[in-house]
Amino acid sequence: MTNNILYLVPLLGVVGLIVMAIKSAWVSKQDAGDENMQRLAGYIAKGAMAFLKAEWKVLSYFVIIAGILLAWSGTFTGSAEHPIHSSWVISISFVIGAVLSAFAGYIGMNIATKANVRTTQAARTSLSKALKVSFNGGTVMGLGVAGLAVIGLGSLFIVFLQMFHVTSVNSDEMKTAIEVLAGFSLGAESIALFARVGGGIYTKAADVGADLVGKVEAGIPEDDVRNPATIADNVGDNVGDVAGMGADLFGSYVATILATMVLGQEINANDAYNGLSPILLPMVIAGLGLIFSIVGTWFVKVKNETDSVQNALNLGNWSSIALTGIASYFVVNALLPEKMSWFDAARGEEFTRNGVFAAIVVGLAVGTLMSIITEYYTAMGKRPVMSIIRQSGTGHATNIIGGLSVGMESTVLPILVLAGGIMGSYYFAGLYGVSIAAAGMMATTAMQLAIDAFGPIADNAGGIAEMSQLPEEVRGRTDNLDAVGNTTAATGKGFAIASAALTSLALFAAFVGISGITAIDIYKAPVLAGLFVGGMIPFIFSSLAIAAVGRAAMDMVNEVRRQFREIPGIMEYKAQPEYEKCVAISTKASIREMLAPGAIALISPVIVGFLFGPEVLGGMLAGVTVSGVLMGIFQSNAGGAWDNAKKSFEKGVMINGEMFYKKSEPHKASVTGDTVGDPFKDTSGPSMNILIKLMSIVSLVIAPFIAGKSFGERPNHGQGVACVEMQHCEKEMMGKCDMSKCATMTKEQCAAMCDSMGCDSTEKAACMSMYDADGKFIGKGHEGCSNEPVCKEDNDKTCSKGDACCKNKKVEAPEKKACCKDNK
Amino acid sequence: MTNNILYLVPLLGVVGLIVMAIKSAWVSKQDAGDENMQRLAGYIAKGAMAFLKAEWKVLSYFVIIAGILLAWSGTFTGSAEHPIHSSWVISISFVIGAVLSAFAGYIGMNIATKANVRTTQAARTSLSKALKVSFNGGTVMGLGVAGLAVIGLGSLFIVFLQMFHVTSVNSDEMKTAIEVLAGFSLGAESIALFARVGGGIYTKAADVGADLVGKVEAGIPEDDVRNPATIADNVGDNVGDVAGMGADLFGSYVATILATMVLGQEINANDAYNGLSPILLPMVIAGLGLIFSIVGTWFVKVKNETDSVQNALNLGNWSSIALTGIASYFVVNALLPEKMSWFDAARGEEFTRNGVFAAIVVGLAVGTLMSIITEYYTAMGKRPVMSIIRQSGTGHATNIIGGLSVGMESTVLPILVLAGGIMGSYYFAGLYGVSIAAAGMMATTAMQLAIDAFGPIADNAGGIAEMSQLPEEVRGRTDNLDAVGNTTAATGKGFAIASAALTSLALFAAFVGISGITAIDIYKAPVLAGLFVGGMIPFIFSSLAIAAVGRAAMDMVNEVRRQFREIPGIMEYKAQPEYEKCVAISTKASIREMLAPGAIALISPVIVGFLFGPEVLGGMLAGVTVSGVLMGIFQSNAGGAWDNAKKSFEKGVMINGEMFYKKSEPHKASVTGDTVGDPFKDTSGPSMNILIKLMSIVSLVIAPFIAGKSFGERPNHGQGVACVEMQHCEKEMMGKCDMSKCATMTKEQCAAMCDSMGCDSTEKAACMSMYDADGKFIGKGHEGCSNEPVCKEDNDKTCSKGDACCKNKKVEAPEKKACCKDNK
Repeated sequence: MTNNILYLVPLLGVVGLIVMAIKSAWVSKQDAGDENMQRLAGYIAKGAMAFLKAEWKVLSYFVIIAGILLAWSGTFTGSAEHPIHSSWVISISFVIGAVLSAFAGYIGMNIATKANVRTTQAARTSLSKALKVSFNGGTVMGLGVAGLAVIGLGSLFIVFLQMFHVTSVNSDEMKTAIEVLAGFSLGAESIALFARVGGGIYTKAADVGADLVGKVEAGIPEDDVRNPATIADNVGDNVGDVAGMGADLFGSYVATILATMVLGQEINANDAYNGLSPILLPMVIAGLGLIFSIVGTWFVKVKNETDSVQNALNLGNWSSIALTGIASYFVVNALLPEKMSWFDAARGEEFTRNGVFAAIVVGLAVGTLMSIITEYYTAMGKRPVMSIIRQSGTGHATNIIGGLSVGMESTVLPILVLAGGIMGSYYFAGLYGVSIAAAGMMATTAMQLAIDAFGPIADNAGGIAEMSQLPEEVRGRTDNLDAVGNTTAATGKGFAIASAALTSLALFAAFVGISGITAIDIYKAPVLAGLFVGGMIPFIFSSLAIAAVGRAAMDMVNEVRRQFREIPGIMEYKAQPEYEKCVAISTKASIREMLAPGAIALISPVIVGFLFGPEVLGGMLAGVTVSGVLMGIFQSNAGGAWDNAKKSFEKGVMINGEMFYKKSEPHKASVTGDTVGDPFKDTSGPSMNILIKLMSIVSLVIAPFIAGKSFGERPNHGQGVACVEMQHCEKEMMGKCDMSKCATMTKEQCAAMCDSMGCDSTEKAACMSMYDADGKFIGKGHEGCSNEPVCKEDNDKTCSKGDACCKNKKVEAPEKKACCKDNK
Repeated sequence: MTNNILYLVPLLGVVGLIVMAIKSAWVSKQDAGDENMQRLAGYIAKGAMAFLKAEWKVLSYFVIIAGILLAWSGTFTGSAEHPIHSSWVISISFVIGAVLSAFAGYIGMNIATKANVRTTQAARTSLSKALKVSFNGGTVMGLGVAGLAVIGLGSLFIVFLQMFHVTSVNSDEMKTAIEVLAGFSLGAESIALFARVGGGIYTKAADVGADLVGKVEAGIPEDDVRNPATIADNVGDNVGDVAGMGADLFGSYVATILATMVLGQEINANDAYNGLSPILLPMVIAGLGLIFSIVGTWFVKVKNETDSVQNALNLGNWSSIALTGIASYFVVNALLPEKMSWFDAARGEEFTRNGVFAAIVVGLAVGTLMSIITEYYTAMGKRPVMSIIRQSGTGHATNIIGGLSVGMESTVLPILVLAGGIMGSYYFAGLYGVSIAAAGMMATTAMQLAIDAFGPIADNAGGIAEMSQLPEEVRGRTDNLDAVGNTTAATGKGFAIASAALTSLALFAAFVGISGITAIDIYKAPVLAGLFVGGMIPFIFSSLAIAAVGRAAMDMVNEVRRQFREIPGIMEYKAQPEYEKCVAISTKASIREMLAPGAIALISPVIVGFLFGPEVLGGMLAGVTVSGVLMGIFQSNAGGAWDNAKKSFEKGVMINGEMFYKKSEPHKASVTGDTVGDPFKDTSGPSMNILIKLMSIVSLVIAPFIAGKSFGERPNHGQGVACVEMQHCEKEMMGKCDMSKCATMTKEQCAAMCDSMGCDSTEKAACMSMYDADGKFIGKGHEGCSNEPVCKEDNDKTCSKGDACCKNKKVEAPEKKACCKDNK
């Protein structure tokens, strides 16, 4: 079962990669500056590569072990009641996902370490040129990530359709194909987590360490060539903000599309593509988003030194979003039939293709609003940042209180937008709507990433300019780009967390379907306990991440202090610091410290799922999602606001009528806030969205294996409403029909009683249904309204797992069998 | 329907109040020291009273308005399907709760402002005497709070039983009595929230303000008489840590008992007390806990100057807990029948009185473990505090990172204990078990509060000693008491948050019952949206609270700076600072700033409940509970750890082999952490447990009014399993019986088919049930497995609210009526 349109998806990805190659060649061709600049850039590139190699080495063990476990898991077939649709091929899929994710990070880092020095050189000429080089560098990464994702997902899907001989959408073979494809996403997202956390620890350990000794103790400027940690700091921008983010967004992008595909597979669509259209739609939209991202890059340019770089980026971003939105209208109309329904009616009602389009619009609106809100909370000159500046006037402590308070406050509007987005997209197209809204948001990932990656390139370019002691105007131009980069980084995070929340809900829905539960009822005590435990995980994850930065930064501080002490002549530019020692400290620390948080994310769903079953795991996922989104927004925005509060002092700020500048007491307080904010905004904050998605994907992958497990169900409650009703019916009225009397009557007598009491036909039918085919009252033996459930009707099949029905010894074997048919 | 045992409860309360009066008279009789000490103590008492009056004035408006609304709400009777059992008397109940809560705070503050100076005077003699005075002060408050609660609840319950002519436990009249009693808890908890938040803002604004200018800028010691904010600081200890905490624990205590009573009312207990025993049990245990708290106080004494005060307090605490645990075994056996069940079987299975006792033990164990864990995370010399000390070595920022990291990490064990406690107590006695576990934990509130309140009294005593320039040894003794007080304050908070979580779950369960829903399914998008919004509320609440402290502290700093500038001679002890101006700033700021967070807690459940119905509100409550517990633990422990990290510098600490003392750079960094931690641990952190309980109580009170409302249900899903099954049965197999063929068969043909296929009797009965009494196939007209639900059986009654069943136009009127009988 294939269709020509299937080949369109990887084709669009190939177009993206071709454009990427052209842009990449253009960047490489640019002038890389004088020998000194090239030497410094060489250190950075070498350090970055060293980190990637060390990281890959550790991760390759993980990939091999996890791959073997997955291959083994693929050999299970499950029971007749809970068949497992998987295959050992899932391990291949997993490895490909992991490798592509790592490769996406590599592409970005490779181009970034070339673009940085070329941007510095370009900045010697004009702002316009510098923007062009740095933004093209970012674009290469964006296109690389999106291109690889689209090609990977699209072509694997084609391969799996054929490999598993899929004949229809709602077939077991399709379930296998999708489960195996989930392995791709698992691979991508696992690597993303380690890359983001490891890179985040690296960059902030170096940054905090370099600042604490260099700026605060030695009094030398940021990026000063005399600071032994300065190369590590610049390497950090590449491994954290570029490679880490590349792997992160690759994982998010894949997870979002996959979640929509999983739900799409459950949709009954009478279309021209063998019912494949709901599965295809997210991939096609992603492909188009990639193309429109390329179009959007054409708008990113400035002419004069005074033109606004932010406006240029916004123009590019909004135009690619708008074009994708418009295009998706036509795509939705071309692909989808007018109406669709779910194969399993419990999933929801019929919905229309117009509803799907509306949901995409909701997704784009949510993303846009999240960006705007995030910008408000982190931008200079706005109320939140101004309040932190004012509170810096009374010292370090009030600055911290101010930032924490702003961060917490900044969760309100995003959560309301998100809640509205969930309700809205759900209203328009049910669970598929929620999922496609996320896919719509993520469609322009290439553009989003180009804008994001341009920031660290500009930051690095500034660093090289400073280290090479280039003229003031060069640093001025790179600072201009860097400042814009800070804002785009913040808005990018708002965007990412919103998409993660929507994606998680979609994954959540997919998980529920595959694990065979119909609800996640937090009124059940074990599920509520799961919710608590899930809510706690982002806290311990954040704790580990920021503590790791604190520890690694202390090591860095001690090493820098040692070099200043033991290597004479550094401060007089007579001796060169041992940069590589600092690089090694960051590398080692980040690799070591990324393991514990990563393990929590990967292992906790497995433990909870296998011990307590899918419903408790569902509760845990909900807890992780809610708490993770809140902690992500809180930490990212607090960090961004502190950063810009500190930056505001460079131009001078007025507190209680007095002007304060750099080196003043309030400025020192603001530096404290910025330092606290560093791990918040670049290590733990942005990891939250990977954490929640990764845990959802792990749960999705193990879902078939835990289907049917249950733990500590509230007896009777989980039993389906029918049983409860039946218990009452022997002593209570059914309509006007007194059922308590029927137990001692024949069917005929009961019918007569019903008639005499004026029961209507439904009520009478209900009474009659108490008798079996032979006219025997099948409830007899249960006098009065006992608490023992009665298993005598087919609808008692609906009693859910492990309930009292099955334990009731008074129920005879065949009845028990029927009653407990779906029980395990 | 009354019983003599009912009168036991208020009687035990009266015993508590009599002992309180004796102890209070004893404290008043002690020597209040010289004239100067009395003058200073007079300032403090006057300032505290001024705050209480200002607070009461504002709150009286609130009580009047809310009381009128409640009286009006009591006039509604609801519909036949969703009757509302309430009465205008709820407003009286509410007012009594509010007044008693305020009065409980007043008792504590009144005795604390007497005991403080008397403790100072006693400390001139011996540690033993000082402990006796301060602990007796705390005991007065503990007994007052618990005594008022037990008398209030116990006697109101007797009054309402007679007023509403309650004849049986499971009657509408009893529902009214309990709903009206919920008003008492609502009143108590509302006042508690305002008192805690207002008091918390007051005390920390004064504390932070006094420290920032006094200690940091002017270099004078804490509690120096020259500091204009010092009186406000000492007043703050009384209004925040005493009056605020008194109202807080009064509210918690009442809420916990009430929640258990609400659930107790749903239990079918065949006992010697007309079935009242499950309702009585929490009140009786509370009464006994009060008596054993009195017994426990006898153990709190030291003989020598070197005896451990902490051990003395622990002995008193553990002995009262152990005695209560043992006594509850006998009480449970005396009151409860051997087995109990729920009137509504959907609530859970039968459980035993041994299970109830086991649940109480689980509650006591959870409380004890929480205290131990909290102590570990906040005590001097343990790993967490040591790590913060070490990170102070590299500056303010790393100190903050360290504290935040410790606070986040400290959520792990408490959450696991809590999750285990929920599962365990639920395992032993279902929802009643969870609730009675919380009641067991809270039984020794009097003792807990005595230990808690002794801390601020000792703190004040030290302040008076410092201000009166008494000999070093006096301050030494009060410092000893104060240090112990810091630890007990931290463990008290751990205890409080655990009990709040369990109580909330019990209130949650009570809410579900009254609002007429059977599940809170977070798989439904609107419910998940509710969960997100609920999770966000503790963040905005905390943000408002700590920002308020920051703002008020800034006002305080500016006022103190002004006085130092404009009043010559302060520093030379020649002029007296204008203490009352600082008192006024704190008073005004706290009253103003407590309103917004209070309003959020009170109004948000009302808005969500009425707009979106009980299930979405349930999702929101779950979000608030999880996020509130996490934020409460995080903030309280981070604050406690920062505080003790700072205190560790007083005796000197070793960082990297070097000793550091007060006034060193690392010490300054630790002061920053302590200042950030102040609003965390004394304003927003401890408010979290009131927030989650208050929102649950508000929801409980409005539950009857929103019963039956629903919003954006996922169609078909909410429809009950029976309907879904029926849809399939026309095309799918029912056992071996192919139902899709039956649609075109007569009943006889179908029966023959069943026989020929070897269906067993159950399967055949199921097939037969597809025909009505006249042998007509009642599903006909629905060809194949349509998505249209089939309404033809009485068990279709189980379709829940608003589902497609009722909208299906193909269903004839009488059938529709039956199908939708329980729908609204």
